[in-house]
Amino acid sequence: MKHSTKQIVLSSRPKGIPVLGNFEIKNIELPELKDNEILLETMFLSVDPYMRGRMNDAKSYAPPYEIGKPIMGGVIAKVIKSNAAKFKENEIVTGNLPWQQYSITTEAGLLKIDTSLAPPSYFLGILGMPGLTAYFGFLHIGKPKVGDTVVVSGAAGAVGMVVGQIAKLKGCRLVGIVGTDEKANILKEEFGFDEVINYKTTANIKKSIAEVCPNGVDIYFDNVGGEISDAVVSNINFHARIVLCGQIALYNNIDIPMGPRLQPMLLTRSVLMQGFIISNYQTQFSEGYNQLS
Amino acid sequence: MKHSTKQIVLSSRPKGIPVLGNFEIKNIELPELKDNEILLETMFLSVDPYMRGRMNDAKSYAPPYEIGKPIMGGVIAKVIKSNAAKFKENEIVTGNLPWQQYSITTEAGLLKIDTSLAPPSYFLGILGMPGLTAYFGFLHIGKPKVGDTVVVSGAAGAVGMVVGQIAKLKGCRLVGIVGTDEKANILKEEFGFDEVINYKTTANIKKSIAEVCPNGVDIYFDNVGGEISDAVVSNINFHARIVLCGQIALYNNIDIPMGPRLQPMLLTRSVLMQGFIISNYQTQFSEGYNQLS
Repeated sequence: MKHSTKQIVLSSRPKGIPVLGNFEIKNIELPELKDNEILLETMFLSVDPYMRGRMNDAKSYAPPYEIGKPIMGGVIAKVIKSNAAKFKENEIVTGNLPWQQYSITTEAGLLKIDTSLAPPSYFLGILGMPGLTAYFGFLHIGKPKVGDTVVVSGAAGAVGMVVGQIAKLKGCRLVGIVGTDEKANILKEEFGFDEVINYKTTANIKKSIAEVCPNGVDIYFDNVGGEISDAVVSNINFHARIVLCGQIALYNNIDIPMGPRLQPMLLTRSVLMQGFIISNYQTQFSEGYNQLS
Repeated sequence: MKHSTKQIVLSSRPKGIPVLGNFEIKNIELPELKDNEILLETMFLSVDPYMRGRMNDAKSYAPPYEIGKPIMGGVIAKVIKSNAAKFKENEIVTGNLPWQQYSITTEAGLLKIDTSLAPPSYFLGILGMPGLTAYFGFLHIGKPKVGDTVVVSGAAGAVGMVVGQIAKLKGCRLVGIVGTDEKANILKEEFGFDEVINYKTTANIKKSIAEVCPNGVDIYFDNVGGEISDAVVSNINFHARIVLCGQIALYNNIDIPMGPRLQPMLLTRSVLMQGFIISNYQTQFSEGYNQLS
């Protein structure tokens, strides 16, 4: 039986902030399922900040999306039909898959998920790329110690919230930076953040950080970059660790943005700044899954 | 017997580039030598870039110089008279001492040097702060591997030249950046640098670096900061290490200088940037002395 499917394709590369016209919904007919192929029905799509980078035609850790081809990303899907030995009908899987209702793929890169551990959508969050990113970035680069002051920007995001949970488990003082009062309240009341700053309503972000971090900042888990990060770095401690996880504030920039040179501060205070992507830790993923679940 | 001595004092804090008027030569009378004190005659003074920072009234790893007090720094001196058990007349010592012909000090922080190992002035260079800085910064942060491409800015300086020697011993491809053709020639002909760029005569420093580093830059040992560093970072490899040792280009700045934001590059290429000062490695100095001599 042939399937037709809707798909979301990149029709042109965005300049600055993406607009609806950069995307197009197409209807296509899927071919017959061949040997070793699997037909999937999409359950959940993950929309992640790094995807903005893939819309540009530039060298990065993930290759650019092609014009006229569907957006690819983290997906949870159900097996509708399988001609591959490893997968059976009705099993739930995750992989890097196209934004389509139905898609045909091979075994390569497809992972069966254990839905007795957690509901399927969790495997795009705490047990997926965001959870693993938080786990390895915070523990392996941030190296938290009891009593450290930790600042997380983009604190209400999928990665930021997991960093916050781990920081509290490690006995750190935890400060989040977010963009709405609603997020600030949830993080303080439900997720145990010691302080949360709404950068949009704060008159002076640098001063606000200094006030809630009277002993300075030992670990900065940076999801956003830009002026928020400048403000955190101005409060950074000797021997601090800056984990570069995301630079959302800059993803829509066309030119390389300018900012204060941070090297003199990093030098005089012996600070470590480390960029990373989660695939650096691929060989240690099982440790991450076990600890996070 | 009382001694009189000349001393060089900081008479006012420089704004931007220091001028002669910021300093003053004074003649003072030294007091009588007390118990446990040592009278020293200065042989060599070390003039180091970090001293510019101490002329400002700002928080850093070393406290600011006081107005009206002598400049302090690395000094090699001869013991003229000693009331301290550990030091004897005519011994050669090193320490952080005032810029004076004669000075009186205690045992604290004073180190006897072994002049059978090398001439006294070497203990302000390869066997002093610059040598140890190069040794620990390059090996412990840079972590060189055979075949790595290493770029050193300020390559003809006291630290840069030692980094270059160690890099060649470790089997790295070695590129230096300097400011005169004379320095460039010496580094290539006498010190085994594979390529040396004179940033003052190069039309496009970014392109020049790309040309002599066809496989990108694995380790950048940064003594200067500013636009030279921007050019190196634009050629940085995945998993590269940037050792922040000095930021000479910025030491005379009054305001925090602006530059391109480097975090997106550090993030997408999983780069480590680490500031350090040599006192972080104080407990391992004996390893450094042994290896360097």
